[in-house]
Amino acid sequence: MADEPAPERADAARNRQAILVAALELIRTRGVDCVTMETVASAAGVGKGTLFRRFGSREGLMAAVLNESEAAWQASVISGPPPLGPGAPPMERLLAFGHSRMRTNVTSGALIKAATGDSSARSRAAASFAVMHVRHLLHELRVSGDLVLLSIAILAPLDIMVIEQQQRDHISLDRIEAGWDDLVRRVVGG
Amino acid sequence: MADEPAPERADAARNRQAILVAALELIRTRGVDCVTMETVASAAGVGKGTLFRRFGSREGLMAAVLNESEAAWQASVISGPPPLGPGAPPMERLLAFGHSRMRTNVTSGALIKAATGDSSARSRAAASFAVMHVRHLLHELRVSGDLVLLSIAILAPLDIMVIEQQQRDHISLDRIEAGWDDLVRRVVGG
Repeated sequence: MADEPAPERADAARNRQAILVAALELIRTRGVDCVTMETVASAAGVGKGTLFRRFGSREGLMAAVLNESEAAWQASVISGPPPLGPGAPPMERLLAFGHSRMRTNVTSGALIKAATGDSSARSRAAASFAVMHVRHLLHELRVSGDLVLLSIAILAPLDIMVIEQQQRDHISLDRIEAGWDDLVRRVVGG
Repeated sequence: MADEPAPERADAARNRQAILVAALELIRTRGVDCVTMETVASAAGVGKGTLFRRFGSREGLMAAVLNESEAAWQASVISGPPPLGPGAPPMERLLAFGHSRMRTNVTSGALIKAATGDSSARSRAAASFAVMHVRHLLHELRVSGDLVLLSIAILAPLDIMVIEQQQRDHISLDRIEAGWDDLVRRVVGG
């Protein structure tokens, strides 16, 4: 009994979750720049006042959406369906990881700009998760050597700043993906 | 005659150069944190007032030293003695480049923190020079594929943030260098 959350608290958590899900859906369909506090409030079925009380500002809401979406992505890497999640051979998982990270980063690019908070702390946390995961897959692939250093090299071209620069240079995501697959095969070797 | 700089201007440039050389020498021997405006002024044979008039502040002086030292390093890559400069086989040049970049970054780490100015603009400029150079060497090594993407991967472990993290984890520069050489050999291939 003592461990059960008070009903108001459970309600608040559900409410928060509903707001974040509604916001993410709106961002995906309309793009970050077209999502206002009004549209999110109305889609989530709450008042605009609730939204401001809970997230402080539009930037605060965007930061919460970003954290939620990064956590969901990490969960799909750890325990989602293969080939991103466990179950597929490690090389397939590694390639799926890179493609998924690249596309997630492209989607999050606009969100990162719209969000407040310590973006460098957030990206350090995401980077350290990615290094741990790639290192684990390199180990499964029986690559020997400094696996952290090799992981850092493999992950560098997936960085959002790098991808955005290549998009400005009109290089397609498919072409970046093909170049990245080639890099991975070179590093992993025969 | 019209193209000759006025004597005062040539003097000022020589003066500036002498100050930067003296500051860099002091930083190398004593470490950034032990270098004050007084010690630099006295080593360069100018008054402390001249130093403040010319560089605004200690941070401004450090930024000028950093630019000077980056420019000198780039010059040694472009036209210095081999294997860093031209003349050595491309694989030797590539390895020398990485080792030299890594050690330059370690020396500059403290300087970057002590300097004012747009450090992200400075590091973008340095990164784009490095990508161009590595891409050129990969081309000489007849590597095929997306050479920019491969260069970004090769350069990532040399980033000052990455090196500093590894130093905090008590990984020696020699060990980082050995891991980096292995990465380069994997990417360049047979």
